[in-house]
Amino acid sequence: MAQNARLRCLGILILCVSLYPVMTTAQQPALNLMPLPANVQSGAGSLKVDSTFSMAFTGYNEPRLERAGERFLRQLARQTGLSLALKPSKSAKATFVIQTDHASKEIQEVGEDESYILDVSTASARLRASTPLGAMHGLQTFLQLVDVSPDGFSAPAVTIQDKPRFPWRGLMMDSARHFIPLEVIRRNLDGMEAVKMNVFHWHLSENQGFRAESKKFPKLHESGSDALYYTQDEIRELIAYARDRGIRVVPEFDMPGHSTAWFVGHPELASGKGPYEIERRWGIFDPAMDPTSEKVYKFLDDFIGEMARIFPDHYFHIGGDEVNGKEWDANPKIQAYMKAHEIKNNQALQAYFSGRVQKLVTKHGKTVVGWDEVLVEGVPKDIVIQSWRGQASLAQAAKQGYRGILSNGYYLDLGWPAARHYAVDPMSGDAANLSTEEKQRILGGESCMWAEYVSPENVDSRIWPRNAAIAERLWSPQEVRDPASMYARLDFVSARLEWLGLTHRTVSRYMLQRLAGSASSAEFAALRTLADVVEPVKDYTREQTAPAEPTSATPMNRVVDAVPLESDVGRRFGELVDQFVASACHDPATEARLRAQLTAWRDNDAILQPLAERSFLVKEVAANSRDLSALGTMGLAALDAIAKAQPASDLWKAQQLTIIEQAKKPKAQLLLIPVPAVQKLIEAAATGACSAPKPQA
Amino acid sequence: MAQNARLRCLGILILCVSLYPVMTTAQQPALNLMPLPANVQSGAGSLKVDSTFSMAFTGYNEPRLERAGERFLRQLARQTGLSLALKPSKSAKATFVIQTDHASKEIQEVGEDESYILDVSTASARLRASTPLGAMHGLQTFLQLVDVSPDGFSAPAVTIQDKPRFPWRGLMMDSARHFIPLEVIRRNLDGMEAVKMNVFHWHLSENQGFRAESKKFPKLHESGSDALYYTQDEIRELIAYARDRGIRVVPEFDMPGHSTAWFVGHPELASGKGPYEIERRWGIFDPAMDPTSEKVYKFLDDFIGEMARIFPDHYFHIGGDEVNGKEWDANPKIQAYMKAHEIKNNQALQAYFSGRVQKLVTKHGKTVVGWDEVLVEGVPKDIVIQSWRGQASLAQAAKQGYRGILSNGYYLDLGWPAARHYAVDPMSGDAANLSTEEKQRILGGESCMWAEYVSPENVDSRIWPRNAAIAERLWSPQEVRDPASMYARLDFVSARLEWLGLTHRTVSRYMLQRLAGSASSAEFAALRTLADVVEPVKDYTREQTAPAEPTSATPMNRVVDAVPLESDVGRRFGELVDQFVASACHDPATEARLRAQLTAWRDNDAILQPLAERSFLVKEVAANSRDLSALGTMGLAALDAIAKAQPASDLWKAQQLTIIEQAKKPKAQLLLIPVPAVQKLIEAAATGACSAPKPQA
Repeated sequence: MAQNARLRCLGILILCVSLYPVMTTAQQPALNLMPLPANVQSGAGSLKVDSTFSMAFTGYNEPRLERAGERFLRQLARQTGLSLALKPSKSAKATFVIQTDHASKEIQEVGEDESYILDVSTASARLRASTPLGAMHGLQTFLQLVDVSPDGFSAPAVTIQDKPRFPWRGLMMDSARHFIPLEVIRRNLDGMEAVKMNVFHWHLSENQGFRAESKKFPKLHESGSDALYYTQDEIRELIAYARDRGIRVVPEFDMPGHSTAWFVGHPELASGKGPYEIERRWGIFDPAMDPTSEKVYKFLDDFIGEMARIFPDHYFHIGGDEVNGKEWDANPKIQAYMKAHEIKNNQALQAYFSGRVQKLVTKHGKTVVGWDEVLVEGVPKDIVIQSWRGQASLAQAAKQGYRGILSNGYYLDLGWPAARHYAVDPMSGDAANLSTEEKQRILGGESCMWAEYVSPENVDSRIWPRNAAIAERLWSPQEVRDPASMYARLDFVSARLEWLGLTHRTVSRYMLQRLAGSASSAEFAALRTLADVVEPVKDYTREQTAPAEPTSATPMNRVVDAVPLESDVGRRFGELVDQFVASACHDPATEARLRAQLTAWRDNDAILQPLAERSFLVKEVAANSRDLSALGTMGLAALDAIAKAQPASDLWKAQQLTIIEQAKKPKAQLLLIPVPAVQKLIEAAATGACSAPKPQA
Repeated sequence: MAQNARLRCLGILILCVSLYPVMTTAQQPALNLMPLPANVQSGAGSLKVDSTFSMAFTGYNEPRLERAGERFLRQLARQTGLSLALKPSKSAKATFVIQTDHASKEIQEVGEDESYILDVSTASARLRASTPLGAMHGLQTFLQLVDVSPDGFSAPAVTIQDKPRFPWRGLMMDSARHFIPLEVIRRNLDGMEAVKMNVFHWHLSENQGFRAESKKFPKLHESGSDALYYTQDEIRELIAYARDRGIRVVPEFDMPGHSTAWFVGHPELASGKGPYEIERRWGIFDPAMDPTSEKVYKFLDDFIGEMARIFPDHYFHIGGDEVNGKEWDANPKIQAYMKAHEIKNNQALQAYFSGRVQKLVTKHGKTVVGWDEVLVEGVPKDIVIQSWRGQASLAQAAKQGYRGILSNGYYLDLGWPAARHYAVDPMSGDAANLSTEEKQRILGGESCMWAEYVSPENVDSRIWPRNAAIAERLWSPQEVRDPASMYARLDFVSARLEWLGLTHRTVSRYMLQRLAGSASSAEFAALRTLADVVEPVKDYTREQTAPAEPTSATPMNRVVDAVPLESDVGRRFGELVDQFVASACHDPATEARLRAQLTAWRDNDAILQPLAERSFLVKEVAANSRDLSALGTMGLAALDAIAKAQPASDLWKAQQLTIIEQAKKPKAQLLLIPVPAVQKLIEAAATGACSAPKPQA
């Protein structure tokens, strides 16, 4: 029976994808592919994947493909538990034959052919691609297709024609504010490969750290990194690792601001007097390079030259964001220079700086990428604008002839739910009205993992699984945008990502164990029940609500650091309440599920409180726990009132809403996610909406 | 309040440990130490562990200690989430000062001083040890002391005087039947260090694989390993890694039997005609070395010489177990030799072989270790017997003047609960009656992880946490033997062990995810509910109940491979039922908990069945799921009958017990652990034991 159902679903999927309608919840695809391919046509039956499975490359081949083949086989063995031959075969009779037409560019270019066609029949599978890039994407799609079935592991018969919507699909990791070890970056590159992202933007310098070894100017990393930096060999290895996965590496050295760490060893670059120390706090700080000093440009010429030889990518990111100008204002020499050269304000001074640096970057054979601020009058048209300001800014740049990538809306550190990132489209808003030519200047987007509040321990959980939704936004057709479908697939893909070594799911339990110490299993379960329904405060409120000024040495061992940025339990409870209210509260099965959940919440605090007495880190969330208990009590009261089939009194409603308002306030920098859903139940109990007598069962 | 309670508990602990009474559940120590130290005296208050924490070595120092210090600081940072200075300090004013008297032996010896004294006060901590071995043990004890508290992380004020009961506390890993990658072995060495085990016995050759590189005889590993072997450099690195953790590495090359893999490249060593292939099945096989061939001894002389130079330990394990003699019987040349030399049977022939090999081992400066079989008349007294046969065999050896280590009772692959291993004492049975001198010949024991049914993926979960209970048996005073205390501490230590990189807890969820494919969260929860209460069949019944003959290529991706070898939920349910019946069924709180658990089980099957339709690996446990559901129904019926306060009818009881008998049968090679507890409820309902009227609440 399940198989028939699956075939019916597949039929729906073809419609969904090939005609690009918006999918509804009822039409969730049975294929757990993320990103969804451009075109999927289902066949009948499935290809068995057992220990006889083999794969071979035909046509063009190269060591990178062989390695991708071995990685594919290892991953397939891991996700099935089968004893597979772990080397690609040489036989054209292999179960899975991958034909590649020709090499890709020696240095991966923006807009290279990444397309592939994947044919799975009941007898074999065949993947065709122009270049290794497409072949590697197709291998990932095949891995996602393989799942357990009634008869063994198998991949459904299907024909997939796929190519990306945008050529630039990136993840930025800030390994400057908190140093991120290479093994953590590597596993995130594995995750990027799995969801077909192709740009790793490496934010390498900041006020808080200079993380790349410079042999020309060793004081940069020696004085500016607390000995936490990447050697040039390590950087080269990481670039090779990324290239093996079809991923470009774009380095960012942020200037003229965000650069305190440079000045610890090289105060002569700064506009202030110094001496400088590595910054330990977060925020925007005064130190900035001196745009009026020829020594600075000589230094940057040498430095950019050195880095340009290490990083082969054609693009080089110079940052350029958030200069407050205070050091410039305070420096008489700079003021005199501005007067002498008719530079009328700090913005113009920065434009002058950007222009000079841009020439240096060009001289060393690279194209500049910079944040919005670098786009000022007269900047050459070949630079790429990375927009943290939004689609309007991006569209404006495109109109002026600049290429751009969107990051506004994709800041992973803001703690938005996946659906909110997913709804952000580089081509929406002002961009939707661009001409075809202008639209082509919008190259794609990048998610950004700024690192004030991430540690090597929890960074995976701040990136994943939400980053997979952004990856889909940048790869799949624009019309693929149903959040219910996205969440259903995300859940599956999220579990698969942990097989690559990512720890986004597991780490939460580890960190809660640390908080819980020698908790009993019941106490630990209660802590998890609470942790399951809270999320860290959003946007930039973490600074504002911090108990003490946070620094780079602040321990990240609190509940706010341990819980995922998006609560699955909270989201599902909200959906359940919506469903219940939509049924005019007449669905006994849903009501029973709500009651069970609310009862567990109500009773949770009593179990957790003794643990809060023993652990200061649990104590911190004692108020959240009481709020959750109150939510349970109120939700149950609302269901009782609804069951009476008469609107509850205004007084009751007012009392409940007072408690709701209290529960809405962040505590311990955490939000209690089910609050709005319980509020809906209270309002449903108080209005006539749910007051009709129930049908007798 | 919690603090006072803790102090009272500490008081009890001192009594427990210093007077060695058997601890009862009510006297569980508040200190989660495993193994429990020889002597613990609690002080008042605790030492705060915050980001100012520092540690320094005074007295004797060496690079190994510095590395141990760095490892300690990294681990402390990991388990607290604090930003600590990660290098040992040079200041005698450090929070934690470790004073070591002198170096340990260049090659670690059996019976070296491993003692330490650890003093923790509210102001500082001090560790004193004769040698780095004791210092390293003390560091591990300190790590176990640090926990979350009401005011932050802290270690309780305490004075611990500690030393091991036995000098030989080992874990044997068989990386021959299934190859175990070095990274997996390394993390298990980390686990051994945490629980103060000091011998890694490395089973390197078997019928199924020859895993050590030989430069003298490269065909051994080239033909005998499927390219899965350790290079000599890797072996040297692993030995250094172990020495860094106070662990000796004893290699085992099993001969004359268990040696098919040698013969693939070197058939001339065998007693049969050959050719030989790597064995893929499990069991005892015919191939054996030819004890009558001088070429064999010449070969072994060279081979043992080569290995003796790589493995510095004073001991060298030659296996010697389970020769069936069939190749000897079938070889006329061997038969003629036996006649000519008056060797009267195969046992005598093996004794002759062992004697010759023992001389070779001695020639290369090592002492022989062998399984029981090597102990035959005339064998020199300096060999060490590893007993898989039991304490009687060990005691007999000791009486004859041989040293021995116990492994019978410590076979981790048999799937026993931790408490059963824990109850096995090397000094019990016949050994208890030995003289003091004879007793000293019993050096300790080794847990054994035979690898027919382990993969690199799940091997951690087959070793841990149960191995920690064996480690305690071998370290702590004989009188420390309360299983309730052991389980309480084991639960804590088990969680801590995962911080070292061990995956024994996490892997089960991963493997169940694989089985479950795209299960809904409710279905997956139902699968976990079932998985939580089943255990693989015990002892050697896995072979007997296998659906098809298992080989080394059989996938280990089934539920039987995914679930832990001991069910915590099952054990706790059993305890709860015992508690309920002991209360004459008059404890309403316990009854409510039992009802909740039984109801969940009863309803679980309905949720799981749809998943069983979609996954062949879940389908395999459909009958177990139905049994669990039946257990729930029966248990609830028993509670209902008990509530009526009249003995249930004989007919009812007979009907239930028929179902119980059915549920006791292994299915899919799994046992349903709560069966006996539910049977107790049924019997309680049917007898008068629980039929007295309940007191009114």
